[in-house]
This record gives sequence, C-alpha cells and structure tokens, in this order.
Amino acid sequence: MIKIADIEAALGRIKNTVHRTPVLTNSTVDKLAGRKLFFKAENLQKTGSFKARGALNAVSKLSAEVAAVCCDSSGNHGQALSWAAKSVGKICHVAVPRGAPAVKVSAIENYGGKVHFCEPNDTGREAKRRELVEKFGAEMIHPSQNLDVIAGQGTIGLELADHFEQPLDAIIIPVGGGGLISGIATALRANWPDVKIIAAEPEAVDDCAVSKKAGKLVVTEKSDTVCDGVRTNVGKNTWPLIQKLVDDVITVDDKAVAKAWKMIMERMKTVAEPTGALALAVAFSPAFNDLYPAQKYQRVGVILCGGNLDLSIVPRMLELADS
Amino acid sequence: MIKIADIEAALGRIKNTVHRTPVLTNSTVDKLAGRKLFFKAENLQKTGSFKARGALNAVSKLSAEVAAVCCDSSGNHGQALSWAAKSVGKICHVAVPRGAPAVKVSAIENYGGKVHFCEPNDTGREAKRRELVEKFGAEMIHPSQNLDVIAGQGTIGLELADHFEQPLDAIIIPVGGGGLISGIATALRANWPDVKIIAAEPEAVDDCAVSKKAGKLVVTEKSDTVCDGVRTNVGKNTWPLIQKLVDDVITVDDKAVAKAWKMIMERMKTVAEPTGALALAVAFSPAFNDLYPAQKYQRVGVILCGGNLDLSIVPRMLELADS
Repeated sequence: MIKIADIEAALGRIKNTVHRTPVLTNSTVDKLAGRKLFFKAENLQKTGSFKARGALNAVSKLSAEVAAVCCDSSGNHGQALSWAAKSVGKICHVAVPRGAPAVKVSAIENYGGKVHFCEPNDTGREAKRRELVEKFGAEMIHPSQNLDVIAGQGTIGLELADHFEQPLDAIIIPVGGGGLISGIATALRANWPDVKIIAAEPEAVDDCAVSKKAGKLVVTEKSDTVCDGVRTNVGKNTWPLIQKLVDDVITVDDKAVAKAWKMIMERMKTVAEPTGALALAVAFSPAFNDLYPAQKYQRVGVILCGGNLDLSIVPRMLELADS
Repeated sequence: MIKIADIEAALGRIKNTVHRTPVLTNSTVDKLAGRKLFFKAENLQKTGSFKARGALNAVSKLSAEVAAVCCDSSGNHGQALSWAAKSVGKICHVAVPRGAPAVKVSAIENYGGKVHFCEPNDTGREAKRRELVEKFGAEMIHPSQNLDVIAGQGTIGLELADHFEQPLDAIIIPVGGGGLISGIATALRANWPDVKIIAAEPEAVDDCAVSKKAGKLVVTEKSDTVCDGVRTNVGKNTWPLIQKLVDDVITVDDKAVAKAWKMIMERMKTVAEPTGALALAVAFSPAFNDLYPAQKYQRVGVILCGGNLDLSIVPRMLELADS
C-alpha cells in the first residue's frame, strides 16, 4: 500500500512539469446545489486529465536502462503515458484495439506514443501487451494498479490540503480502477482526518459500490455508459485503500451525468468529458443529499477529472440530459 | 469621445462586482501559431461575456430616480444589462423579437430581466423600444454606442496593461458595434503607445474593414455568419476611436472561425461561443501573418470575448471546421 511519504515524494518529482490546476467555483452552481462546491480542474491538466500526474511519476522513477514503457489504454492513460515518457526521453508503446476512434489514435501519436493495433478483445490486448514487453523491453505501466501511478494521482490531495485553510467537509472523487481515489484519499486522510470521502461511480459499472457493500472485492457485469473513463474494475492494489479510507460509494445514471455535464459546460464554461461530470452528478444526487445534508456538509470538493471531450458526442449528451 | 480617465473611473465603479478575468495560455496553441498568445478570458466573465462590464458601468452611473433601463438585445448585452440592473436594484426591460430561441429568453429572465416580445424586424424593435422608454420611464442603454458602456469595456485594457510587465506586441479584438475595441484601444494606447491594435471581423459583416479602407463610416450589406455576437455595424460614437486607434481590420470566413473555435474547445478546454473564437481565427489568418510576422510580433493578445455557446450548434461548427 502506498503511504503519504510516497505521495509527497511524487509531488517533488512532478511538480515542475505538471500544472498545479486551479480550484474553480461558480456562484450559480452553488445556488443550485445549496452548498459551496470547489472543483479541482484536472481537465486543465497537461494532456487534459489527471492521468499525467501518475504517468509522469511512474516513468520518472524508472532507471535510465529502461528505454521504453507500454500500456494498452487508448484513452487518457495512453495519452498521458506517451506524453510522460517523451518528457523523460523514453519511448511509449501503446496497444490500441483495431477500430478505436481515429481521434484517439492521433492524440497518442501527437504526444509521441507509438501505436500498435491489436484485436479488440481481452485476449488480443493481453497478447499485444506481452509482445510489447518482450520485443521492446518495455516496462508495463498499469493505469490504476501501478503503485507509482497511484502516488502520482495522490498529489491532487496534497494540492487541495495546501489550497484550503480549513478542511473541506466532504470530497467526491470518481472511481474506475481506483488509482485516483485511493491516491487522493491517502493524501487527504493524512491532512484532514475528518473529511468525508465519497466515490462517484456510474450505475452501469457498479463494482466499487457492490464491493463496498459486500466488504470484499467483487467483479460485476458492466453495461454501457457515457463515462468511458471509468469503465473498468477496482483492482487489488486500490481496493484495500478504498475499503479503508472511502466513506461511501454513490452511483448515478447517465442522465444525471449528462445533466451535470451540461451545467459544467453552460455555467462554468469549462470543457469536461462525460466522466469529468460524474462527481458533480453525485453532488446533486438524492443519495448524497440524504447521507450528507447541505446544512452539515457545506463545503464540498469535486474532482473534475478530465476534459478530453469528443465534440461529436455533444448531441447525444444533450439528448440524454433533456430525456 | 471617451478618455482614459473615464475608463479608470469605470474600473473603480465595477471592479468589486465583475471578475478580473484570467489571462490563459496554451503551449500547444502557441506551437501551432509560432508565437506566444495571451487570451483574455471574458468567457469566464459574469454573464459569460465582456458585456457585463459596460452594462454595469452604465447602470451604476444612473441616478437613483431612474428605476428602469431597457435595450433591444436578446443576446449577451440583454443578459448583461438584466444582471447589471438587478445588481444595482433597478429593473431591466428587454425587447425580444418574437421567435427568439427559448434559451435566450430564459437566460434574460434568469438574470432578472423582463422580456417584452416585438415583431422580428427593425420597425418592430424600434417601436417596442420607444414603448419601453415611455411606459416604464426606462433609460435606453445602447449595447455599443453608449459612452459609459464603451468605458466599461475599456476596463479590459487596463487589466491587460496591469497584468504584463512588458507591453504586448499586438492585440486582436473582435469588432461588431465597436464598443469593445474602442474601449480597449483607448485604454491600451494610453499605456502602450506602440502596441498594434487589430480588429477581427467576419467576412460576412465587413462594414468596419470597408469603412477603414474608405476612411469614413460605411454601412455594408450583411450576410449570414456563425459570429452572431458581431452581426451589427460600427456606430457614430465608436467609429472615430476605431479610425484613430486601430491599425488594421482583418476579416476571416466562418470556416476559419470554426477551426479556431474547435482549437479553443479541444486544446484549451475552455468554452467559447463562435464569436469568442473570431480573434484567434485572425491570429492564424494569412493576412495577419503577412502584416505582423511572428518574428517581429511574438507576444500577441487575443480577446476571447464570450462563452455563451448554444451547445446545439456544435455539430454545425464541427462540420464547418472540417469542411
């Protein structure tokens, strides 16, 4: 398990290269929520998501002999790892399922990553990953279970603890593989012992909520969701931290996410990908308001995790929001 | 004509109520432009556009006996004036052409403005405006020719002059009625005598470019453009300032605007309305690069004037950008 010292070391390693992202507020959104919401704007992070932090911390710790890294994420981690590897003079090989959107492929290439197409299924990805490790001597960097990645994401928690004079009452953090929330939770608990830490998860991928209720790591069946950034399971390195440090897991449906997304775009004028609106959707959910009433929990942090919005999905998001 | 002292007084009047908006930069956009671009982010201004500045300055100067103001703008000025009037305890009446989008009507109402529908033509608007003045004793606040509005918009120039230790080499400012550019130009010339001031105008509404060439105020025929924020003519109070202070007027077509808009959304992760991308489109135009080569004009300001994007037009903007 990572410790606060790992996160502090990570911050020292990455702080001159990643952005210390701003904390955004909006009076109209606050009025609607009946609380003061503080958005950690990781959509404005290098490569458009928090993934730049963990990726950079992980590649920075590799020895000079390791010339290459690899992963099989065609999403934000693939872009972040490509960018991070380039910034420390290493090569990043990315296994990308055949048929992935051209915009994702070119994003990886623009950040300097090498794209290797594979069959679009678990067997194909696994085989390609092994091939990349063997052929290029590449170090595989897992998007959420790599301990240095988790420590890197945790630097968000240190920045938040430093930003506020008084601890927040609660913080809402999206959960997919769990790297983001377990890192932030570790950093915040060390600074703010009493803060409530809430995981935000889409109904369609509710393994974290089910695991939390069961008291053990459970894999559930996934259905489709607009929150493509968290369409994955909590893993063995993040689960112990989530079990220990997270107070509640709250799920929301895609319509709630689309409504929150629209509010971020229209009111806050900052660009979020659908998953970036997940935590705000939870802030507006009946479950959150029952468990954490505004009278008692006035000051709430919201992690706006990414801004890599594919503009072609805007009509679908509007349709969902107004459905 | 307004003077620098009017703008300084305006800043004193409004600065505790409007945002001092951030100056955004983006390394990817800079690389593409071959210069350092500095975006004054008025999309993050109260009411989502710079119009809040001028409107608030104008209503703040009215005597206590004036209980109401009016205008016939259903766009950003109508929203800004509604907001400004409310913030000083006055009522704002807005003439809105029948058939205006429901989203604009509700935006005005949300800011506390009273909507009065009129026939969607010049005669209908003029008649309704007169009616509002007579019936409610409302003071008409013109969106671009009111001198206090011009002075209010000029506060952007003071903030820029204060923000940078060294003057910028050039600044690009959208022009419609000319309130924004004549205010900023007045403020900047007083602080930076040598800065090049460039007006950005859509090809489809090129009255400022034609006037500048002719050396006199000319009204041209308008055709359709995505830049709805500047679909209007320079007027008698702004023209003398433009003639005196603006170095060049550069026009761009809608495709160039759509490409710049996409860059702002995808790269900078900040929400712009189409007109908000007009100045960046000029920064990338061949005309600007011919007249103001990057070697000599390295540091360029860009006014990102508004962020009230109607999300339903995103598909049209993408189609234009990729056409």
